Amino acid sequence: MMRLTAPGRQRFSQATQLGITYGGGEANVSAALAYLGIPAAHVTVFPENDLGRAAAAFFQKTGIDTRHIQYGPGRLGLYFMETGEGLRPSRIVYDRYESAFAHLQPDTFDWKNILSDAQWFHWTGITPAVSASAAQACADALRTARQLGLTISADVNYRRVLWQYGKKAGDIMPGLVEYCDVIVCTIGDAADIFGIQTTDFQDMARRMMEQFPNLKRVIATRRENLSASHNRLTGVCFDAAGYIESPTFDLQPIVDRIGGGDAFMAGYIYGSLTFNNLQRTLAFATAASALKHMIEGDFNMASVAEVEQAMQGDVAGRLLR
Amino acid sequence: MMRLTAPGRQRFSQATQLGITYGGGEANVSAALAYLGIPAAHVTVFPENDLGRAAAAFFQKTGIDTRHIQYGPGRLGLYFMETGEGLRPSRIVYDRYESAFAHLQPDTFDWKNILSDAQWFHWTGITPAVSASAAQACADALRTARQLGLTISADVNYRRVLWQYGKKAGDIMPGLVEYCDVIVCTIGDAADIFGIQTTDFQDMARRMMEQFPNLKRVIATRRENLSASHNRLTGVCFDAAGYIESPTFDLQPIVDRIGGGDAFMAGYIYGSLTFNNLQRTLAFATAASALKHMIEGDFNMASVAEVEQAMQGDVAGRLLR
Amino acid sequence: MMRLTAPGRQRFSQATQLGITYGGGEANVSAALAYLGIPAAHVTVFPENDLGRAAAAFFQKTGIDTRHIQYGPGRLGLYFMETGEGLRPSRIVYDRYESAFAHLQPDTFDWKNILSDAQWFHWTGITPAVSASAAQACADALRTARQLGLTISADVNYRRVLWQYGKKAGDIMPGLVEYCDVIVCTIGDAADIFGIQTTDFQDMARRMMEQFPNLKRVIATRRENLSASHNRLTGVCFDAAGYIESPTFDLQPIVDRIGGGDAFMAGYIYGSLTFNNLQRTLAFATAASALKHMIEGDFNMASVAEVEQAMQGDVAGRLLR
Amino acid sequence: MMRLTAPGRQRFSQATQLGITYGGGEANVSAALAYLGIPAAHVTVFPENDLGRAAAAFFQKTGIDTRHIQYGPGRLGLYFMETGEGLRPSRIVYDRYESAFAHLQPDTFDWKNILSDAQWFHWTGITPAVSASAAQACADALRTARQLGLTISADVNYRRVLWQYGKKAGDIMPGLVEYCDVIVCTIGDAADIFGIQTTDFQDMARRMMEQFPNLKRVIATRRENLSASHNRLTGVCFDAAGYIESPTFDLQPIVDRIGGGDAFMAGYIYGSLTFNNLQRTLAFATAASALKHMIEGDFNMASVAEVEQAMQGDVAGRLLR
Amino acid sequence: MMRLTAPGRQRFSQATQLGITYGGGEANVSAALAYLGIPAAHVTVFPENDLGRAAAAFFQKTGIDTRHIQYGPGRLGLYFMETGEGLRPSRIVYDRYESAFAHLQPDTFDWKNILSDAQWFHWTGITPAVSASAAQACADALRTARQLGLTISADVNYRRVLWQYGKKAGDIMPGLVEYCDVIVCTIGDAADIFGIQTTDFQDMARRMMEQFPNLKRVIATRRENLSASHNRLTGVCFDAAGYIESPTFDLQPIVDRIGGGDAFMAGYIYGSLTFNNLQRTLAFATAASALKHMIEGDFNMASVAEVEQAMQGDVAGRLLR
Amino acid sequence: MMRLTAPGRQRFSQATQLGITYGGGEANVSAALAYLGIPAAHVTVFPENDLGRAAAAFFQKTGIDTRHIQYGPGRLGLYFMETGEGLRPSRIVYDRYESAFAHLQPDTFDWKNILSDAQWFHWTGITPAVSASAAQACADALRTARQLGLTISADVNYRRVLWQYGKKAGDIMPGLVEYCDVIVCTIGDAADIFGIQTTDFQDMARRMMEQFPNLKRVIATRRENLSASHNRLTGVCFDAAGYIESPTFDLQPIVDRIGGGDAFMAGYIYGSLTFNNLQRTLAFATAASALKHMIEGDFNMASVAEVEQAMQGDVAGRLLR
Repeated sequence: MMRLTAPGRQRFSQATQLGITYGGGEANVSAALAYLGIPAAHVTVFPENDLGRAAAAFFQKTGIDTRHIQYGPGRLGLYFMETGEGLRPSRIVYDRYESAFAHLQPDTFDWKNILSDAQWFHWTGITPAVSASAAQACADALRTARQLGLTISADVNYRRVLWQYGKKAGDIMPGLVEYCDVIVCTIGDAADIFGIQTTDFQDMARRMMEQFPNLKRVIATRRENLSASHNRLTGVCFDAAGYIESPTFDLQPIVDRIGGGDAFMAGYIYGSLTFNNLQRTLAFATAASALKHMIEGDFNMASVAEVEQAMQGDVAGRLLR
Repeated sequence: MMRLTAPGRQRFSQATQLGITYGGGEANVSAALAYLGIPAAHVTVFPENDLGRAAAAFFQKTGIDTRHIQYGPGRLGLYFMETGEGLRPSRIVYDRYESAFAHLQPDTFDWKNILSDAQWFHWTGITPAVSASAAQACADALRTARQLGLTISADVNYRRVLWQYGKKAGDIMPGLVEYCDVIVCTIGDAADIFGIQTTDFQDMARRMMEQFPNLKRVIATRRENLSASHNRLTGVCFDAAGYIESPTFDLQPIVDRIGGGDAFMAGYIYGSLTFNNLQRTLAFATAASALKHMIEGDFNMASVAEVEQAMQGDVAGRLLR
Repeated sequence: MMRLTAPGRQRFSQATQLGITYGGGEANVSAALAYLGIPAAHVTVFPENDLGRAAAAFFQKTGIDTRHIQYGPGRLGLYFMETGEGLRPSRIVYDRYESAFAHLQPDTFDWKNILSDAQWFHWTGITPAVSASAAQACADALRTARQLGLTISADVNYRRVLWQYGKKAGDIMPGLVEYCDVIVCTIGDAADIFGIQTTDFQDMARRMMEQFPNLKRVIATRRENLSASHNRLTGVCFDAAGYIESPTFDLQPIVDRIGGGDAFMAGYIYGSLTFNNLQRTLAFATAASALKHMIEGDFNMASVAEVEQAMQGDVAGRLLR
Repeated sequence: MMRLTAPGRQRFSQATQLGITYGGGEANVSAALAYLGIPAAHVTVFPENDLGRAAAAFFQKTGIDTRHIQYGPGRLGLYFMETGEGLRPSRIVYDRYESAFAHLQPDTFDWKNILSDAQWFHWTGITPAVSASAAQACADALRTARQLGLTISADVNYRRVLWQYGKKAGDIMPGLVEYCDVIVCTIGDAADIFGIQTTDFQDMARRMMEQFPNLKRVIATRRENLSASHNRLTGVCFDAAGYIESPTFDLQPIVDRIGGGDAFMAGYIYGSLTFNNLQRTLAFATAASALKHMIEGDFNMASVAEVEQAMQGDVAGRLLR
Repeated sequence: MMRLTAPGRQRFSQATQLGITYGGGEANVSAALAYLGIPAAHVTVFPENDLGRAAAAFFQKTGIDTRHIQYGPGRLGLYFMETGEGLRPSRIVYDRYESAFAHLQPDTFDWKNILSDAQWFHWTGITPAVSASAAQACADALRTARQLGLTISADVNYRRVLWQYGKKAGDIMPGLVEYCDVIVCTIGDAADIFGIQTTDFQDMARRMMEQFPNLKRVIATRRENLSASHNRLTGVCFDAAGYIESPTFDLQPIVDRIGGGDAFMAGYIYGSLTFNNLQRTLAFATAASALKHMIEGDFNMASVAEVEQAMQGDVAGRLLR
Repeated sequence: MMRLTAPGRQRFSQATQLGITYGGGEANVSAALAYLGIPAAHVTVFPENDLGRAAAAFFQKTGIDTRHIQYGPGRLGLYFMETGEGLRPSRIVYDRYESAFAHLQPDTFDWKNILSDAQWFHWTGITPAVSASAAQACADALRTARQLGLTISADVNYRRVLWQYGKKAGDIMPGLVEYCDVIVCTIGDAADIFGIQTTDFQDMARRMMEQFPNLKRVIATRRENLSASHNRLTGVCFDAAGYIESPTFDLQPIVDRIGGGDAFMAGYIYGSLTFNNLQRTLAFATAASALKHMIEGDFNMASVAEVEQAMQGDVAGRLLR
C-alpha cells in the first residue's frame, strides 16, 4: 500500500502536500529483515500502472527480493494518515477497495518455485481478509510451505472492516493458523476470531496452542498508551516452557507509530534464526520494535548493531561519530 | 476529485511527496465563475470521511456555494499526475473506482429546490459515465432545469474508459444533450458518441444542431501542441449566425495543463451573462482558458480584470505594483 | 491578521520562508465553533487588495460565514512568529499599524441586520484597543446585541501596547464589559483595566460581577509553564453558584501555543449551547483548549467527537483507523 | 524591505508559505557591487526588532558594509509578490506604511564620516518619496558627497503612490538631481517629474542635461515585454558625445524580474570605475542586468567573470565544470 | 557519485538545502538500460559507511543488479551543482578526491565471474583517470570481456583535471580503446587524447578506426547551445558503411542537462540489441538523450514506449490519461 | 565545515535533500560571541571555489569579522548528519580529507597583525590534529597571542581518528596547552592525551594545572544522556579557588545536539569579559549551552537577554510579544 501522510502535525484539510511511503504487514517484515541482513522476498500483486511500478521500485531499494511481484488489474491500495501528538491521536483513512492484490488469482503464484530456497514463511491476517482468492492463495502458500518444511509465522492482526467478501475471519483464519509455528496474537484477536474469551495473555496463548496443535508459541507486545507521543512497550511470549517478558522500552517522543508490530515480528525472526536464546530473541524483537517508533515510514530501517545498542539501553544522546 | 501531483518535473517513482489540489469538470467551472464574481454552486457527493470534508473545505475557499454537497459511502475519486515538459508529455493515473459520487442515489438531490434561484445549469459528460444512478440524477437535473427555464450547457468530454456500468455514451448522452442550449464538443466526441463523421468543425456543429433542435450553439478550443510546454489556443464557435474564431493565444511556458476546457466554459458563461456580444464572449472565454494554463491547479483563479488584460494582449512582463 | 511563522524551530534570521496562517481573537472563536458544527459568522474589515481577499478565502474554508466581511483602505495586520522549544520561548513581532480594521467607520456595519438571526455575540479586548472607531463599532454592536437579546461574551485580553489612540483600556473597557454575560478575565487584566487588586481568582471574579451587574460568570484557564514545550492547563469558573475547576490537562509536546484562550472560549460557547451542565461545559472548553495546543495554526480544528475523546482522557496512542 | 514571495507560480491565496528575501533600490546596487568585488556600504534605518536585525544579517552576508545601518522605531517595509508566467503578469502588494526608514531623522546619519572614504554615492527616487525627513537626509548626503568630490548617480524611479507626505516629486526631485553626474531616467519619469514632454530618449536626455548643468549623462534600459517570461533588453546612453546602445539580450525564461534596473546601475558603476570605455561599460551594465533576470532575489549575485561571459554572448548551455 | 544540487535556480550561497541524487557515467548507462527493460549490472566500489550504503540503495531502486558493488575505504565522490537558466550557465564543483572507487585494488573484482552471463561491457574515460589501480581494473575487465566475446563500448569523455596520478590520458587510453567495438568520441577528445587533429567528425572517426582496428564505429551527439535552457541535439554515427545522422531534437526548456551522453549510449545499446537497423538505433539513442533532458537526475528514467513516442515526434502537449 | 543534515528524523537513505549549515569548533565560538555582542573574528582557510565563498558568506551573516579568512587549494570539509530521537542516536559521517584548512601554510597568517587589537584567543584540539602545518600555525598563533598578552582558551576536544599525519595528540597538544589560561577538558581527554588517569574531575583539573603552570582553570559540562531527545547539563569549574558547579538545566526536547561545548565556551568568554563573578559566568556559560540545544545549526544564536532569561529559569511557555 501507498501511505500518504500529512506533513508534520497538519490536519488533512490543512495539508497541501502528502508524504509518500509504502508499506503493508508482510512487506514491512521483509524490508526490516533485509536491513537486518536476512535475505527476504516479498510476494504480492501490484497494479499494472505507473504507481504499481513505483511501489515495486520503492521496495527494491530496501534490498528485498522483488522478483516474485506480479502486476495485474486493480488499484494500488492506499491509506491516508495524519499524525497525532500528545493528547491528539493519529487518524487513518483506508482506501483499499478493489486493490490489485485483492484481484489476485489462486494460480498467480507458483509457490513451489517461490518457496523452494526459503526457510521461513510469514503472513498476516490482512491477506485472507481482502478477497476469497487472496485467502485461497494464502492457504496454498501455507500448504506448500508446510510441505517444504519452512517455519511459519503469522500476525493475526484482525481488522473487522476488511472482511467484506462474505466470509468472516472466524470462518477462514482457523484453517490458516493451524499451519503456524508461531503467531502474534492479542487477547482481543483471540476473542474476535477464535472465540477464546479471557483477559489473560498466558491463558489465551495456552488455549490457542491447545486449539492449534502445530502452534508452538504465541508472542505479542504490551503497549501502554501514555499519549500519542509517549508509549511504553514490553514484549511478551508464551510457549511450552512458560511465559517470559522483555525489558520495557520507553518510547518518547514517538516519530512514527506505524509498523511497530511488523518490526517486532522481523526482530523475532532474526533472533530465532540467529541467537538460539528465546529471552534474547524477545529482547531483540522488542528493541527492534521500539527503535521502529523512532524511524519514519512503515518499516524498521535498523541494522543489527543499532538494535543491539537499543537493546542494551544505550539510548545515547551520545553522537555516533 | 483529489489530484495528487508529483512536484516539479519528478517522475512518480522519484516523488517523495505529492501536491494536493481538488478539481473536476463541473467543480472547475463553478470555481472559475466564483473568481469571476458570478455566484455559483457545486452539487456533488463526497465520501463521509476526513477526505470528503477536506475536499468540501477546499471548495468553500473558492467562494462557491457548497451547501448542496452531500456525504455518502464510497471513496473520494483520485487522480495522480506527473507533469511533462518540452518533448516529455504529462502522465495521469486515474483512480476513481467506487467513488462516493458514483454511489449517489437518484433522490440524493432535490433539484427543484437546488435550482430554484439559478440562471444557468452546466454539466459534463463525465457525470453520466460513472454510474447509472449518476446518469439518472443528471437527467433529472436537466428536466428540472429545463422546466425552470435555465440556460443549459454541457462539456461533452468523452472518456471511453469511464463507461463501465453497461451503457455506452451513445446510449445515454443523446437523451441528455437534447436539453442543452450550448455545448463544448470536439469532432472526435461527435464521431464517438453521436456518430457524426466529419473532419470539419462547422459541419459537425451544424449536424449536431440538426440532431438536437434545442441546441443553439457549439463551441470548442482548437489547440496546437508544439510541445508539453508550448501550445497555441484558439476559440471556435458555430451557431445559426455562422462561424467565428477568437484571437490565437500563445501559451508558453505552460504552468498547468489541466482544466483549460473548464476555464473556457466558465469564461463563456461569464461572457454570455455579461457582454451581449458573442465575439467578445468567445475572446473572453479563450483568454480565460489561456490564463488558466499559467495557474496551478485544476481551475482558473483569475478575476475579470485579469482575463480582460490577457484578452487585450497585455501579457505584460510589466509588474503590477 | 496574517501570521507568518518561521519553519520548525528556526530563528527569524535563519528562515528563508515563512508559513502563512490567519487568525485573530474573534476569528479564532468563530472558526473553532464552525468545526464544532455551530454556525458562526466573522465580522471584520480586510484591506481591499490581494492579501485581504486571500485572508477572506482562508476563513471561508473553515466554514464560517464571511458575508459580513468588508473591504477598505489600510493594511492587513500581520504578526511574525518564531516557535520556541524547551527552555527557549517563542517570539512574536506584531505589525498591525494602520490595519484596515483600525480604519473601520462606525457605520461600516449594519449590526441590526448582521445580528438579526444570532444567538450569541463574542468580542475581545483587542477590538476597542486599535482605534476609536473600532471601539465605537464595538459599543454599537454590543448595544444592538443586548437589544436583540443575544448572550454576550468577551475575552478581556489586555495588551497595553495596543492602546495608542489616546484612550486607555480603563477608559473604554468598563463601558463595554457592562454588556457582557460572561467574560474571560485574568487577575492581571482585572488589575490593569478595572483596578481590582487581588491575587485570588474567586475574589477577582466576585468583584468584577459586583462592578458589572449584568456579568453572570467569569472564566479563565490556569496554565503552568513547565517549558515552552510542556504546560499544564486547568479551566476555572466562578459565578453565583460558586467556583469550579476542570480536570487538568497535560500538554506535551506543544505543537502550537497560539489561540488556546480562543479555543477555550469556543468550547465554552459550544458547551453552553449544548450541555446545560456547567461542569461538563468547563471540561469541554478546557479539553478543546488542550487539543488546540496539538494543532497547527491559530484556531482549533477539532470536531465535537475529538474534544469529547480528549475530555475523557482517551489521549490515545491508539490509532484511529 | 523584506520581500515575501509566493512559491513557484502560486497565487497569493494558494500559498501556504512565502519565500523571504530582502532588497531595495540602493541596497540592491550595493549588494551587486559587492559581488563584483567593489567595496560598498548601505546606509539605512531598520526597525529595532528581530526583523530589522534579520534584514541587516541578510545584507552582511552579501559582503556589503553594514556598519552605518541604524535601528529605530517603525516597521520593516514589506512587499508581497506572486510571480507571473507567460501571459500572466506578476503582482506586487506594497506594504511600507510607517517604515523605520521613513522615520529617520535628518541627523540620524553623520554623512561626513560615512562618506569620508567613498568614491561614489548612489541614491534612488524612492528615498525622498517616503517622508520629508528622508528627503532632507538625501539632500544632506548629496551636499556632503558633492563637497567631498564623489561621483553621484541616481535612479529617478518615479512611483507616484509613494509621495504621500504633502510634497510632489516635482517639488523635491529637481533639487536633488542637480547634484547628479549620471542618472537612470525614462521618458515617463522625465515627463511626470520634470515636465519634459517628449517621446524620444535622446531628446529627453538632452533636455535633462540642459535643465541640470551638473548632469553629464543619462542612461536607461529599453525593454520589450514579449511575455512575463520573455523580454528583450537593450542598454541606452546619452551624453555630450552622443547616443550609444548596448547589444540586445534575449531574456528567456525570466527567473526573477525584480531588480533589473539596480543590476544595470551597479554594472554601470563597476564599468565606470574599471573600464575607461563607455561602450564597454554600457554593454557590461546591460549584461549584468540581463544576468540578474536569471537569478532569484532582488539583486545581482554575479561575479565580474560571469557578467563578462554573458556580455560575450557565451550564454552557454555548456556546463562550467 | 552523490550529486548535491541547489534547489530551483538558487546560487550555492542562497541554498539552505541541496537535493540528492546519484550518478556517474557507467551507472547512468546501467540505470537507463534497466528502465528500457535490459538487465544491467553496475560494478563499482562504494565507501564502507552510511553514505556508501545509501548510494547502493539508490541504485537498487532503479532495478540494476548491484550484487557486484564492493565496499571499501575512502570517500563517496561528490559533486555540487547549481542549475543555470537562459544566459546563465550551470556550475559544478567536483569533489572526488580519494574516493573509494579510486582506492579499488586490481583484484577487487573477479571479472570472469561478473561478466560470465553478460553480452555487453561499457566503460567511460572517467574510470582510468582516477587512479592507477582503477586503470588496471579497467584493463583487466576489458581483457576478460574480449575473451568472453562481449561487445565493448566506451564513452571517451576526457576530463583533463581528473588525470592526477602521474599518467596522462594519452598514455593509458589507447591501450583500452583498442578493445572497443564502438565509442562515443568528440573531435576535441580525439585531439587531446589520441593526437588526431581535425575539425571534421567523419575524418576523426575514420582515423580513429584506422588507429584502432577493432573499433567498428564512432558515435556522438552534436549539440547547439542556444542557451542554458534551450539546446538542439542531433545524433551522428560513422562506420564502414559511412556517415548517418538522426533527426534533430529541440530541447526547450531543459529540465536537467546532466547525463545526456549516457542516455544516448544506453539508447544506442538498447537499439543495437533490439533493432538490427542502425538508422533506427541512432534515432532511438538520440531521442532517449533528448528525453533525458526533460527528466531530473543523472540518468534517463524512460521506458521504450516513451522513447519511441519522442522519436516519432509525438512530443505531445496531449495528456496521457 | 559544511554540515549536511537529513531533514527531520530521516535516515540517510530516505533523504532526498540535505539541509546546509556551516560550523566548526572555533567558528562556532566566534559566531556565538557575535550574537552576544562581542566583536569576534574567525581565522581559517576555505577552498578557492564556490563552496568556500558560500561558507565565508554564511559566516559574514553572523556578524563575525571574516577579513582574515584565506582561500586556497583543497576541499571544503564536510560532515553528514542524521538526527536521532528518543532511543535512536544521531549519526555523523565525517568527510574532511584534504581540506583547504589542512593545507594551510605556516605563513598563511600574519598573526601579529591579526591579533593586534584582540583581547582573547581561542583554539580547539581539532586544529593541530588535521595536519603538521595546521599544528605549526596554531603554535605560531599561540606564541604571538602570549606575547601580545591575550587571554588564551582551548577546547581540548580529542578525536583520535583525526590525528593521521604521523603525530599523536600526546606529541603535540602539551606544547600548545602550556600557553593556555583556561581549557575545556574532560576526564577522558586528560587520560588519552596527557596521561592523567583519574575518574574525578577535580583531581584531573588539579593535575592538569600542575602539569601546565600557566593554566589557571579547567572547565567542562557534565551531561546526563537520558535519551537522544532528553539530556541534563551542568557546568563545572575548577581553579585555585576550588570547585564550583552551575545549576542543572533540563534539555527536553533537544532540537540540535551539535555545538553545545562551543556555546559553553562562548558563554564563558562573554561572562569572563563582563561579569567579574565566576559563579555567574559559569551559570551564564551553561545556560548558553543549554539554550544552544534548542537552536538549529552548529552555534548559539542567542542574545545576552535570552541567555540571562534561560539562566534565571524563565524557560517560559510564555510568549514574548
